[in-house]
Amino acid sequence: MKKLHELPREELERIFNAAPFVADLGIRLVSFGSGTCETELDIEPRHFQQDGFVHAGVQATMADHTAGGAAATMIEPDNIVLTVEFKINLLRAAKGEQLTCQANVLKPGSRLIVVESEIQCVNDGTAILVSKTTASMAVVGAH
Amino acid sequence: MKKLHELPREELERIFNAAPFVADLGIRLVSFGSGTCETELDIEPRHFQQDGFVHAGVQATMADHTAGGAAATMIEPDNIVLTVEFKINLLRAAKGEQLTCQANVLKPGSRLIVVESEIQCVNDGTAILVSKTTASMAVVGAH
Amino acid sequence: MKKLHELPREELERIFNAAPFVADLGIRLVSFGSGTCETELDIEPRHFQQDGFVHAGVQATMADHTAGGAAATMIEPDNIVLTVEFKINLLRAAKGEQLTCQANVLKPGSRLIVVESEIQCVNDGTAILVSKTTASMAVVGAH
Amino acid sequence: MKKLHELPREELERIFNAAPFVADLGIRLVSFGSGTCETELDIEPRHFQQDGFVHAGVQATMADHTAGGAAATMIEPDNIVLTVEFKINLLRAAKGEQLTCQANVLKPGSRLIVVESEIQCVNDGTAILVSKTTASMAVVGAH
Repeated sequence: MKKLHELPREELERIFNAAPFVADLGIRLVSFGSGTCETELDIEPRHFQQDGFVHAGVQATMADHTAGGAAATMIEPDNIVLTVEFKINLLRAAKGEQLTCQANVLKPGSRLIVVESEIQCVNDGTAILVSKTTASMAVVGAH
Repeated sequence: MKKLHELPREELERIFNAAPFVADLGIRLVSFGSGTCETELDIEPRHFQQDGFVHAGVQATMADHTAGGAAATMIEPDNIVLTVEFKINLLRAAKGEQLTCQANVLKPGSRLIVVESEIQCVNDGTAILVSKTTASMAVVGAH
Repeated sequence: MKKLHELPREELERIFNAAPFVADLGIRLVSFGSGTCETELDIEPRHFQQDGFVHAGVQATMADHTAGGAAATMIEPDNIVLTVEFKINLLRAAKGEQLTCQANVLKPGSRLIVVESEIQCVNDGTAILVSKTTASMAVVGAH
Repeated sequence: MKKLHELPREELERIFNAAPFVADLGIRLVSFGSGTCETELDIEPRHFQQDGFVHAGVQATMADHTAGGAAATMIEPDNIVLTVEFKINLLRAAKGEQLTCQANVLKPGSRLIVVESEIQCVNDGTAILVSKTTASMAVVGAH
Protein backbone atom coordinates (compact mmCIF):
# COMPACT_ATOMS: atom_id res chain seq x y z
CA MET A 1 0.00 0.00 0.00
CA LYS A 2 1.37 3.39 -1.02
CA LYS A 3 2.00 6.04 1.61
CA LEU A 4 -0.06 9.17 1.08
CA HIS A 5 1.88 12.00 -0.43
CA GLU A 6 1.69 15.21 1.61
CA LEU A 7 1.67 17.93 -1.02
CA PRO A 8 -0.24 18.78 -3.23
CA ARG A 9 -2.66 16.46 -1.52
CA GLU A 10 -5.27 19.24 -1.36
CA GLU A 11 -5.43 19.56 -5.15
CA LEU A 12 -5.70 15.81 -5.60
CA GLU A 13 -8.48 15.48 -3.03
CA ARG A 14 -10.26 18.44 -4.58
CA ILE A 15 -10.12 16.69 -7.97
CA PHE A 16 -11.75 13.61 -6.50
CA ASN A 17 -14.19 15.02 -3.97
CA ALA A 18 -15.41 17.92 -6.09
CA ALA A 19 -15.94 16.10 -9.40
CA PRO A 20 -19.65 15.19 -9.52
CA PHE A 21 -19.35 12.97 -12.61
CA VAL A 22 -16.70 10.79 -11.02
CA ALA A 23 -18.66 10.45 -7.78
CA ASP A 24 -21.82 9.70 -9.77
CA LEU A 25 -20.08 6.84 -11.61
CA GLY A 26 -18.77 5.38 -8.35
CA ILE A 27 -15.03 5.84 -8.99
CA ARG A 28 -13.10 5.86 -5.69
CA LEU A 29 -9.59 7.08 -4.90
CA VAL A 30 -7.53 4.17 -3.53
CA SER A 31 -4.06 5.66 -3.09
CA PHE A 32 -1.59 8.10 -4.55
CA GLY A 33 2.09 8.96 -4.41
CA SER A 34 4.55 11.14 -6.24
CA GLY A 35 3.43 10.87 -9.87
CA THR A 36 1.05 7.97 -9.28
CA CYS A 37 -2.64 7.50 -8.54
CA GLU A 38 -4.84 4.44 -8.16
CA THR A 39 -8.64 4.21 -8.31
CA GLU A 40 -11.31 1.52 -8.35
CA LEU A 41 -14.91 1.10 -9.50
CA ASP A 42 -17.44 -1.61 -8.69
CA ILE A 43 -19.03 -2.56 -12.01
CA GLU A 44 -22.82 -2.14 -12.18
CA PRO A 45 -25.26 -2.77 -15.06
CA ARG A 46 -25.64 1.00 -15.56
CA HIS A 47 -22.00 1.09 -16.73
CA PHE A 48 -22.65 -1.23 -19.70
CA GLN A 49 -22.81 -0.57 -23.42
CA GLN A 50 -25.28 -2.45 -25.63
CA ASP A 51 -23.46 -5.81 -25.52
CA GLY A 52 -23.10 -6.12 -21.73
CA PHE A 53 -19.48 -4.90 -21.50
CA VAL A 54 -18.31 -1.85 -19.55
CA HIS A 55 -18.75 1.16 -21.88
CA ALA A 56 -15.56 2.65 -23.36
CA GLY A 57 -16.74 5.97 -21.92
CA VAL A 58 -16.62 4.61 -18.36
CA GLN A 59 -13.05 3.46 -18.94
CA ALA A 60 -12.13 6.75 -20.60
CA THR A 61 -13.53 8.69 -17.63
CA MET A 62 -11.65 6.55 -15.13
CA ALA A 63 -8.39 6.64 -17.12
CA ASP A 64 -8.56 10.41 -17.63
CA HIS A 65 -9.51 11.25 -14.07
CA THR A 66 -6.90 8.97 -12.51
CA ALA A 67 -4.30 10.47 -14.87
CA GLY A 68 -5.36 13.90 -13.64
CA GLY A 69 -4.86 12.69 -10.09
CA ALA A 70 -1.36 11.43 -10.83
CA ALA A 71 -0.46 14.71 -12.57
CA ALA A 72 -1.88 16.74 -9.67
CA THR A 73 0.66 15.19 -7.30
CA MET A 74 3.42 16.96 -9.23
CA ILE A 75 2.22 20.56 -9.52
CA GLU A 76 2.67 23.73 -7.48
CA PRO A 77 -0.09 24.50 -4.94
CA ASP A 78 -1.58 27.39 -6.95
CA ASN A 79 -1.93 25.42 -10.17
CA ILE A 80 -4.52 23.01 -11.54
CA VAL A 81 -4.37 20.37 -14.30
CA LEU A 82 -6.69 20.24 -17.30
CA THR A 83 -6.82 17.46 -19.88
CA VAL A 84 -5.55 18.57 -23.29
CA GLU A 85 -6.00 15.24 -25.09
CA PHE A 86 -5.90 11.52 -24.50
CA LYS A 87 -5.89 8.32 -26.52
CA ILE A 88 -7.33 5.09 -25.21
CA ASN A 89 -6.82 1.61 -26.67
CA LEU A 90 -9.57 -0.84 -25.70
CA LEU A 91 -7.68 -4.12 -25.60
CA ARG A 92 -10.23 -6.65 -24.37
CA ALA A 93 -13.95 -6.62 -23.58
CA ALA A 94 -14.37 -5.55 -19.94
CA LYS A 95 -16.68 -7.93 -18.08
CA GLY A 96 -16.44 -8.66 -14.37
CA GLU A 97 -16.92 -7.28 -10.89
CA GLN A 98 -14.46 -4.43 -10.60
CA LEU A 99 -12.20 -2.09 -12.54
CA THR A 100 -8.93 -0.86 -11.06
CA CYS A 101 -6.93 1.94 -12.65
CA GLN A 102 -3.26 2.68 -12.11
CA ALA A 103 -1.90 5.98 -13.50
CA ASN A 104 1.81 6.83 -13.69
CA VAL A 105 3.42 10.05 -14.86
CA LEU A 106 5.60 9.29 -17.89
CA LYS A 107 6.99 12.82 -18.19
CA PRO A 108 6.57 15.61 -15.63
CA GLY A 109 6.76 19.25 -16.72
CA SER A 110 5.96 22.77 -15.64
CA ARG A 111 3.46 23.28 -18.48
CA LEU A 112 2.53 19.81 -19.69
CA ILE A 113 2.48 16.44 -17.91
CA VAL A 114 2.17 13.15 -19.83
CA VAL A 115 0.50 10.29 -17.94
CA GLU A 116 -0.25 6.64 -18.71
CA SER A 117 -3.27 4.85 -17.21
CA GLU A 118 -3.83 1.12 -17.24
CA ILE A 119 -7.22 -0.36 -16.39
CA GLN A 120 -7.51 -3.93 -15.17
CA CYS A 121 -10.84 -5.76 -14.98
CA VAL A 122 -11.24 -8.20 -12.10
CA ASN A 123 -13.39 -11.20 -13.03
CA ASP A 124 -13.72 -14.18 -10.64
CA GLY A 125 -10.57 -13.06 -8.83
CA THR A 126 -8.43 -12.71 -11.95
CA ALA A 127 -7.31 -9.27 -13.17
CA ILE A 128 -6.64 -8.67 -16.87
CA LEU A 129 -5.54 -5.50 -18.66
CA VAL A 130 -8.54 -4.15 -20.59
CA SER A 131 -7.38 -0.70 -21.71
CA LYS A 132 -4.39 1.60 -21.84
CA THR A 133 -4.50 5.37 -22.10
CA THR A 134 -1.91 8.09 -22.71
CA ALA A 135 -3.00 11.57 -21.64
CA SER A 136 -1.50 15.08 -21.92
CA MET A 137 -2.46 17.35 -19.02
CA ALA A 138 -1.87 21.10 -19.10
CA VAL A 139 -0.68 22.82 -15.93
CA VAL A 140 -2.47 26.15 -15.58
CA GLY A 141 -2.86 28.81 -12.88
CA ALA A 142 -5.94 28.31 -10.73
CA HIS A 143 -7.09 31.92 -11.11
CA MET B 1 -33.19 17.51 -40.77
CA LYS B 2 -31.70 14.23 -42.00
CA LYS B 3 -34.00 11.52 -43.30
CA LEU B 4 -33.74 8.31 -41.31
CA HIS B 5 -31.70 5.66 -43.00
CA GLU B 6 -33.55 2.36 -43.44
CA LEU B 7 -30.83 -0.24 -42.98
CA PRO B 8 -29.09 -1.10 -40.66
CA ARG B 9 -31.42 0.99 -38.57
CA GLU B 10 -32.00 -1.93 -36.21
CA GLU B 11 -28.34 -2.11 -35.21
CA LEU B 12 -28.14 1.62 -34.67
CA GLU B 13 -31.29 1.71 -32.54
CA ARG B 14 -30.03 -1.29 -30.58
CA ILE B 15 -26.79 0.58 -29.86
CA PHE B 16 -28.74 3.51 -28.48
CA ASN B 17 -31.69 1.86 -26.74
CA ALA B 18 -29.75 -1.00 -25.20
CA ALA B 19 -26.74 0.92 -23.85
CA PRO B 20 -27.51 1.64 -20.17
CA PHE B 21 -24.55 3.99 -19.66
CA VAL B 22 -25.62 6.24 -22.51
CA ALA B 23 -29.24 6.35 -21.33
CA ASP B 24 -28.05 7.01 -17.78
CA LEU B 25 -26.03 10.03 -18.92
CA GLY B 26 -28.98 11.40 -20.87
CA ILE B 27 -27.49 11.18 -24.39
CA ARG B 28 -30.26 11.14 -27.02
CA LEU B 29 -30.17 10.07 -30.67
CA VAL B 30 -31.18 13.02 -32.87
CA SER B 31 -30.74 11.72 -36.41
CA PHE B 32 -28.63 9.46 -38.57
CA GLY B 33 -27.88 8.81 -42.22
CA SER B 34 -25.42 6.84 -44.29
CA GLY B 35 -22.16 7.20 -42.36
CA THR B 36 -23.42 9.94 -40.05
CA CYS B 37 -25.01 10.18 -36.61
CA GLU B 38 -26.06 13.10 -34.43
CA THR B 39 -26.78 13.13 -30.69
CA GLU B 40 -27.49 15.68 -27.96
CA LEU B 41 -27.21 15.96 -24.19
CA ASP B 42 -28.72 18.48 -21.78
CA ILE B 43 -25.89 19.48 -19.45
CA GLU B 44 -26.57 18.85 -15.74
CA PRO B 45 -24.36 19.48 -12.68
CA ARG B 46 -23.76 15.72 -12.35
CA HIS B 47 -21.79 15.86 -15.65
CA PHE B 48 -19.17 18.26 -14.23
CA GLN B 49 -15.56 17.79 -13.25
CA GLN B 50 -14.07 19.63 -10.26
CA ASP B 51 -13.95 23.06 -11.92
CA GLY B 52 -17.56 23.23 -13.11
CA PHE B 53 -16.91 22.20 -16.73
CA VAL B 54 -18.36 19.13 -18.45
CA HIS B 55 -16.04 16.20 -17.63
CA ALA B 56 -13.80 14.96 -20.44
CA GLY B 57 -15.28 11.51 -19.76
CA VAL B 58 -18.79 12.72 -20.64
CA GLN B 59 -17.49 14.10 -23.93
CA ALA B 60 -15.49 10.93 -24.61
CA THR B 61 -18.59 8.78 -23.99
CA MET B 62 -20.71 10.92 -26.30
CA ALA B 63 -18.02 11.09 -29.01
CA ASP B 64 -17.37 7.35 -28.90
CA HIS B 65 -20.99 6.30 -28.83
CA THR B 66 -22.04 8.66 -31.62
CA ALA B 67 -19.07 7.41 -33.67
CA GLY B 68 -20.33 3.87 -33.06
CA GLY B 69 -23.74 4.96 -34.32
CA ALA B 70 -22.29 6.43 -37.51
CA ALA B 71 -20.21 3.29 -38.12
CA ALA B 72 -23.25 1.06 -37.49
CA THR B 73 -25.06 2.64 -40.44
CA MET B 74 -22.46 1.09 -42.76
CA ILE B 75 -22.26 -2.55 -41.68
CA GLU B 76 -23.99 -5.76 -42.72
CA PRO B 77 -27.04 -6.78 -40.63
CA ASP B 78 -25.25 -9.66 -38.86
CA ASN B 79 -22.31 -7.59 -37.69
CA ILE B 80 -21.69 -5.26 -34.76
CA VAL B 81 -19.12 -2.51 -34.16
CA LEU B 82 -16.74 -2.39 -31.21
CA THR B 83 -14.40 0.50 -30.38
CA VAL B 84 -10.73 -0.39 -30.87
CA GLU B 85 -9.25 2.98 -29.88
CA PHE B 86 -10.02 6.66 -29.96
CA LYS B 87 -8.22 9.94 -29.37
CA ILE B 88 -9.99 13.03 -28.12
CA ASN B 89 -8.65 16.60 -28.13
CA LEU B 90 -10.34 18.85 -25.58
CA LEU B 91 -10.19 22.23 -27.32
CA ARG B 92 -12.09 24.56 -25.00
CA ALA B 93 -13.70 24.31 -21.57
CA ALA B 94 -17.29 23.06 -22.03
CA LYS B 95 -19.74 25.21 -20.12
CA GLY B 96 -23.35 25.81 -21.16
CA GLU B 97 -26.77 24.26 -21.57
CA GLN B 98 -26.34 21.53 -24.14
CA LEU B 99 -23.81 19.40 -26.00
CA THR B 100 -24.44 18.28 -29.56
CA CYS B 101 -22.29 15.67 -31.26
CA GLN B 102 -21.95 15.11 -34.99
CA ALA B 103 -20.12 11.95 -36.13
CA ASN B 104 -19.02 11.31 -39.72
CA VAL B 105 -17.35 8.23 -41.16
CA LEU B 106 -13.96 9.25 -42.55
CA LYS B 107 -13.16 5.80 -44.00
CA PRO B 108 -15.59 2.87 -44.29
CA GLY B 109 -14.28 -0.69 -44.37
CA SER B 110 -15.33 -4.29 -44.01
CA ARG B 111 -13.12 -4.81 -40.93
CA LEU B 112 -12.32 -1.34 -39.61
CA ILE B 113 -14.26 1.94 -39.82
CA VAL B 114 -12.64 5.28 -38.94
CA VAL B 115 -15.01 7.96 -37.64
CA GLU B 116 -14.62 11.59 -36.57
CA SER B 117 -16.86 13.15 -33.90
CA GLU B 118 -17.17 16.85 -33.19
CA ILE B 119 -18.84 18.10 -30.02
CA GLN B 120 -20.28 21.60 -29.86
CA CYS B 121 -21.32 23.23 -26.60
CA VAL B 122 -24.35 25.52 -26.75
CA ASN B 123 -24.10 28.43 -24.33
CA ASP B 124 -26.65 31.28 -24.44
CA GLY B 125 -27.67 30.28 -27.95
CA THR B 126 -24.11 30.17 -29.34
CA ALA B 127 -22.47 26.85 -30.28
CA ILE B 128 -18.69 26.45 -30.11
CA LEU B 129 -16.53 23.43 -30.91
CA VAL B 130 -15.25 21.99 -27.61
CA SER B 131 -13.72 18.66 -28.64
CA LYS B 132 -12.79 16.53 -31.60
CA THR B 133 -12.36 12.77 -31.61
CA THR B 134 -11.04 10.23 -34.10
CA ALA B 135 -12.13 6.64 -33.43
CA SER B 136 -11.33 3.26 -34.98
CA MET B 137 -14.25 0.82 -34.81
CA ALA B 138 -13.83 -2.90 -35.52
CA VAL B 139 -16.57 -4.69 -37.47
CA VAL B 140 -17.14 -8.12 -35.96
CA GLY B 141 -19.70 -10.90 -36.32
CA ALA B 142 -22.52 -10.66 -33.79
CA HIS B 143 -22.24 -14.33 -32.77
CA MET C 1 -3.94 29.55 -55.15
CA LYS C 2 -3.59 30.99 -51.65
CA LYS C 3 -1.98 34.38 -51.19
CA LEU C 4 1.19 34.30 -49.12
CA HIS C 5 0.68 35.48 -45.57
CA GLU C 6 3.06 38.28 -44.55
CA LEU C 7 3.73 37.55 -40.90
CA PRO C 8 5.16 35.33 -39.37
CA ARG C 9 6.38 34.28 -42.76
CA GLU C 10 9.98 34.27 -41.52
CA GLU C 11 9.26 31.57 -38.93
CA LEU C 12 7.42 29.43 -41.46
CA GLU C 13 10.18 29.74 -44.05
CA ARG C 14 12.75 28.97 -41.38
CA ILE C 15 10.83 25.79 -40.51
CA PHE C 16 10.94 24.68 -44.13
CA ASN C 17 14.33 25.88 -45.32
CA ALA C 18 16.27 24.94 -42.21
CA ALA C 19 14.88 21.46 -41.61
CA PRO C 20 17.38 19.03 -43.19
CA PHE C 21 15.16 15.95 -42.81
CA VAL C 22 12.29 17.56 -44.69
CA ALA C 23 14.57 18.77 -47.49
CA ASP C 24 16.20 15.33 -47.63
CA LEU C 25 12.82 13.64 -48.13
CA GLY C 26 11.88 16.09 -50.89
CA ILE C 27 8.90 17.77 -49.15
CA ARG C 28 8.22 21.19 -50.70
CA LEU C 29 6.22 24.13 -49.35
CA VAL C 30 3.40 24.96 -51.79
CA SER C 31 1.46 27.73 -50.04
CA PHE C 32 0.35 29.00 -46.68
CA GLY C 33 -2.16 31.40 -45.15
CA SER C 34 -3.51 32.27 -41.74
CA GLY C 35 -3.70 28.90 -39.98
CA THR C 36 -3.12 26.83 -43.11
CA CYS C 37 -0.18 25.26 -44.91
CA GLU C 38 0.12 23.06 -47.98
CA THR C 39 3.04 20.88 -49.06
CA GLU C 40 3.81 18.29 -51.73
CA LEU C 41 6.20 15.39 -52.28
CA ASP C 42 7.07 13.49 -55.45
CA ILE C 43 6.97 9.81 -54.50
CA GLU C 44 10.22 7.90 -55.09
CA PRO C 45 11.12 4.25 -54.41
CA ARG C 46 13.27 5.31 -51.44
CA HIS C 47 10.02 6.40 -49.66
CA PHE C 48 8.56 2.87 -49.70
CA GLN C 49 8.02 0.33 -46.95
CA GLN C 50 8.46 -3.40 -47.62
CA ASP C 51 5.27 -3.83 -49.68
CA GLY C 52 5.84 -0.98 -52.16
CA PHE C 53 3.59 1.59 -50.45
CA VAL C 54 4.75 4.96 -49.09
CA HIS C 55 6.05 4.32 -45.56
CA ALA C 56 3.83 5.53 -42.70
CA GLY C 57 6.89 7.42 -41.45
CA VAL C 58 7.04 9.50 -44.63
CA GLN C 59 3.40 10.44 -44.19
CA ALA C 60 3.92 11.14 -40.48
CA THR C 61 6.87 13.43 -41.28
CA MET C 62 4.89 15.31 -43.90
CA ALA C 63 1.76 15.58 -41.73
CA ASP C 64 3.72 16.76 -38.68
CA HIS C 65 5.87 19.24 -40.53
CA THR C 66 2.99 20.76 -42.49
CA ALA C 67 1.02 21.02 -39.23
CA GLY C 68 4.00 22.87 -37.76
CA GLY C 69 3.92 25.21 -40.73
CA ALA C 70 0.22 25.95 -40.25
CA ALA C 71 0.74 26.56 -36.51
CA ALA C 72 3.72 28.84 -37.21
CA THR C 73 1.48 31.24 -39.15
CA MET C 74 -0.36 32.03 -35.90
CA ILE C 75 2.42 32.75 -33.39
CA GLU C 76 4.25 35.85 -32.22
CA PRO C 77 7.59 36.63 -33.96
CA ASP C 78 9.74 35.62 -30.96
CA ASN C 79 8.13 32.21 -30.51
CA ILE C 80 8.62 28.82 -32.13
CA VAL C 81 6.40 25.72 -32.30
CA LEU C 82 7.41 22.25 -31.14
CA THR C 83 5.37 19.07 -31.62
CA VAL C 84 4.00 17.70 -28.36
CA GLU C 85 2.17 14.69 -29.80
CA PHE C 86 0.30 13.56 -32.88
CA LYS C 87 -1.90 10.71 -33.97
CA ILE C 88 -2.07 9.50 -37.55
CA ASN C 89 -4.68 7.18 -39.05
CA LEU C 90 -3.46 5.41 -42.19
CA LEU C 91 -6.69 5.04 -44.16
CA ARG C 92 -5.61 3.51 -47.47
CA ALA C 93 -2.37 2.17 -48.94
CA ALA C 94 -0.48 5.10 -50.53
CA LYS C 95 0.66 4.24 -54.04
CA GLY C 96 1.07 6.77 -56.83
CA GLU C 97 3.11 9.70 -58.12
CA GLN C 98 2.67 12.43 -55.55
CA LEU C 99 1.53 13.18 -52.01
CA THR C 100 -0.09 16.50 -51.15
CA CYS C 101 -0.68 17.58 -47.58
CA GLN C 102 -3.14 20.22 -46.40
CA ALA C 103 -2.90 21.33 -42.75
CA ASN C 104 -5.50 23.49 -41.00
CA VAL C 105 -5.44 24.88 -37.48
CA LEU C 106 -8.42 23.44 -35.57
CA LYS C 107 -7.79 25.48 -32.41
CA PRO C 108 -5.30 28.37 -32.06
CA GLY C 109 -3.88 29.22 -28.64
CA SER C 110 -1.11 31.15 -26.95
CA ARG C 111 0.43 27.98 -25.48
CA LEU C 112 -0.94 25.09 -27.52
CA ILE C 113 -2.18 24.91 -31.13
CA VAL C 114 -4.15 21.91 -32.44
CA VAL C 115 -3.79 21.19 -36.16
CA GLU C 116 -5.27 18.64 -38.56
CA SER C 117 -3.35 17.40 -41.61
CA GLU C 118 -4.85 15.46 -44.49
CA ILE C 119 -2.64 13.68 -47.02
CA GLN C 120 -3.93 12.88 -50.48
CA CYS C 121 -2.14 10.50 -52.83
CA VAL C 122 -2.30 11.34 -56.52
CA ASN C 123 -2.36 8.25 -58.72
CA ASP C 124 -3.02 8.54 -62.48
CA GLY C 125 -4.49 12.00 -61.96
CA THR C 126 -6.89 10.96 -59.19
CA ALA C 127 -6.33 12.13 -55.61
CA ILE C 128 -7.53 10.03 -52.68
CA LEU C 129 -7.27 10.66 -48.94
CA VAL C 130 -4.65 8.26 -47.54
CA SER C 131 -4.10 9.55 -44.00
CA LYS C 132 -5.37 12.00 -41.43
CA THR C 133 -3.39 13.40 -38.52
CA THR C 134 -4.24 15.48 -35.45
CA ALA C 135 -1.26 17.21 -33.84
CA SER C 136 -0.74 19.29 -30.69
CA MET C 137 1.99 21.92 -31.08
CA ALA C 138 3.45 23.79 -28.11
CA VAL C 139 4.25 27.50 -28.50
CA VAL C 140 7.52 28.28 -26.75
CA GLY C 141 9.92 31.21 -26.58
CA ALA C 142 12.76 30.98 -29.09
CA HIS C 143 15.46 31.69 -26.51
CA MET D 1 21.15 -10.10 -25.54
CA LYS D 2 17.89 -11.60 -26.79
CA LYS D 3 17.93 -14.92 -28.60
CA LEU D 4 16.65 -14.72 -32.15
CA HIS D 5 13.13 -16.03 -32.55
CA GLU D 6 12.84 -18.72 -35.23
CA LEU D 7 9.44 -18.08 -36.73
CA PRO D 8 8.20 -15.82 -38.33
CA ARG D 9 11.72 -14.59 -38.68
CA GLU D 10 11.35 -14.43 -42.46
CA GLU D 11 8.54 -11.88 -42.24
CA LEU D 12 10.48 -9.76 -39.78
CA GLU D 13 13.64 -9.80 -41.87
CA ARG D 14 11.58 -9.02 -44.95
CA ILE D 15 10.13 -5.99 -43.14
CA PHE D 16 13.62 -4.72 -42.37
CA ASN D 17 15.61 -5.68 -45.44
CA ALA D 18 12.98 -4.76 -48.01
CA ALA D 19 11.89 -1.38 -46.64
CA PRO D 20 13.87 1.23 -48.60
CA PHE D 21 12.83 4.17 -46.40
CA VAL D 22 14.10 2.48 -43.25
CA ALA D 23 17.39 1.52 -44.87
CA ASP D 24 17.74 5.04 -46.28
CA LEU D 25 17.35 6.56 -42.81
CA GLY D 26 19.95 4.18 -41.36
CA ILE D 27 17.68 2.28 -38.95
CA ARG D 28 19.21 -1.12 -38.06
CA LEU D 29 17.60 -4.21 -36.56
CA VAL D 30 19.38 -5.09 -33.29
CA SER D 31 17.38 -8.02 -31.95
CA PHE D 32 13.92 -9.50 -31.69
CA GLY D 33 12.00 -12.07 -29.70
CA SER D 34 8.41 -13.18 -29.21
CA GLY D 35 6.48 -9.89 -29.27
CA THR D 36 9.55 -7.67 -29.04
CA CYS D 37 11.88 -5.86 -31.41
CA GLU D 38 14.83 -3.53 -30.90
CA THR D 39 16.43 -1.15 -33.40
CA GLU D 40 19.06 1.59 -33.41
CA LEU D 41 19.98 4.64 -35.48
CA ASP D 42 23.15 6.72 -35.51
CA ILE D 43 22.01 10.35 -35.50
CA GLU D 44 23.23 12.44 -38.44
CA PRO D 45 22.58 16.12 -39.31
CA ARG D 46 20.23 15.04 -42.12
CA HIS D 47 17.83 13.70 -39.42
CA PHE D 48 17.33 17.15 -37.85
CA GLN D 49 14.39 19.55 -37.86
CA GLN D 50 14.95 23.32 -37.97
CA ASP D 51 16.20 23.66 -34.38
CA GLY D 52 18.89 20.96 -34.47
CA PHE D 53 16.87 18.19 -32.79
CA VAL D 54 15.99 14.84 -34.37
CA HIS D 55 12.81 15.39 -36.41
CA ALA D 56 9.59 13.95 -34.97
CA GLY D 57 9.16 12.16 -38.31
CA VAL D 58 12.42 10.23 -37.83
CA GLN D 59 11.20 9.08 -34.43
CA ALA D 60 7.75 8.26 -35.80
CA THR D 61 9.31 6.17 -38.58
CA MET D 62 11.52 4.29 -36.14
CA ALA D 63 8.71 3.76 -33.60
CA ASP D 64 6.26 2.56 -36.25
CA HIS D 65 8.68 0.29 -38.04
CA THR D 66 10.01 -1.30 -34.85
CA ALA D 67 6.41 -1.81 -33.70
CA GLY D 68 5.73 -3.55 -37.01
CA GLY D 69 8.74 -5.77 -36.34
CA ALA D 70 7.47 -6.72 -32.89
CA ALA D 71 3.99 -7.46 -34.28
CA ALA D 72 5.46 -9.54 -37.12
CA THR D 73 6.97 -11.98 -34.60
CA MET D 74 3.43 -13.00 -33.59
CA ILE D 75 1.66 -13.68 -36.90
CA GLU D 76 1.10 -16.74 -39.09
CA PRO D 77 3.61 -17.25 -41.95
CA ASP D 78 1.12 -16.25 -44.69
CA ASN D 79 0.14 -12.95 -43.10
CA ILE D 80 1.64 -9.48 -43.05
CA VAL D 81 1.14 -6.50 -40.73
CA LEU D 82 0.08 -3.03 -41.82
CA THR D 83 -0.11 0.04 -39.58
CA VAL D 84 -3.67 1.20 -38.95
CA GLU D 85 -2.85 4.16 -36.70
CA PHE D 86 -0.34 5.31 -34.14
CA LYS D 87 0.07 8.09 -31.62
CA ILE D 88 3.44 9.44 -30.59
CA ASN D 89 4.20 11.67 -27.61
CA LEU D 90 7.44 13.65 -28.00
CA LEU D 91 8.60 13.92 -24.39
CA ARG D 92 11.97 15.64 -24.62
CA ALA D 93 14.07 17.22 -27.37
CA ALA D 94 16.20 14.46 -28.96
CA LYS D 95 19.84 15.54 -29.22
CA GLY D 96 22.77 13.15 -29.08
CA GLU D 97 24.64 10.40 -30.89
CA GLN D 98 22.20 7.54 -31.17
CA LEU D 99 18.54 6.57 -30.92
CA THR D 100 17.51 3.14 -29.68
CA CYS D 101 13.96 1.88 -29.98
CA GLN D 102 12.39 -0.94 -27.97
CA ALA D 103 8.95 -2.19 -29.09
CA ASN D 104 6.78 -4.55 -27.05
CA VAL D 105 3.44 -6.09 -27.97
CA LEU D 106 0.83 -4.89 -25.47
CA LYS D 107 -1.98 -7.03 -26.89
CA PRO D 108 -1.61 -9.78 -29.51
CA GLY D 109 -4.55 -10.71 -31.71
CA SER D 110 -5.48 -12.54 -34.89
CA ARG D 111 -6.73 -9.36 -36.57
CA LEU D 112 -5.21 -6.48 -34.65
CA ILE D 113 -1.99 -6.21 -32.61
CA VAL D 114 -1.33 -3.26 -30.27
CA VAL D 115 2.33 -2.38 -29.74
CA GLU D 116 4.20 0.19 -27.63
CA SER D 117 7.54 1.67 -28.74
CA GLU D 118 9.89 3.64 -26.55
CA ILE D 119 12.76 5.64 -28.04
CA GLN D 120 15.79 6.52 -25.95
CA CYS D 121 18.35 9.08 -27.05
CA VAL D 122 21.95 8.39 -26.08
CA ASN D 123 23.91 11.58 -25.39
CA ASP D 124 27.43 11.42 -23.88
CA GLY D 125 26.78 7.87 -22.71
CA THR D 126 23.48 8.66 -20.97
CA ALA D 127 20.18 7.36 -22.40
CA ILE D 128 16.95 9.27 -21.81
CA LEU D 129 13.41 8.50 -22.97
CA VAL D 130 12.51 10.96 -25.73
CA SER D 131 9.26 9.56 -27.13
CA LYS D 132 6.61 6.93 -26.60
CA THR D 133 4.30 5.53 -29.25
CA THR D 134 1.24 3.28 -29.21
CA ALA D 135 0.43 1.65 -32.56
CA SER D 136 -2.38 -0.54 -33.88
CA MET D 137 -1.23 -3.00 -36.55
CA ALA D 138 -3.70 -4.92 -38.74
CA VAL D 139 -2.94 -8.55 -39.57
CA VAL D 140 -3.86 -9.22 -43.20
CA GLY D 141 -3.33 -12.02 -45.69
CA ALA D 142 -0.23 -11.55 -47.86
CA HIS D 143 -2.10 -12.23 -51.11
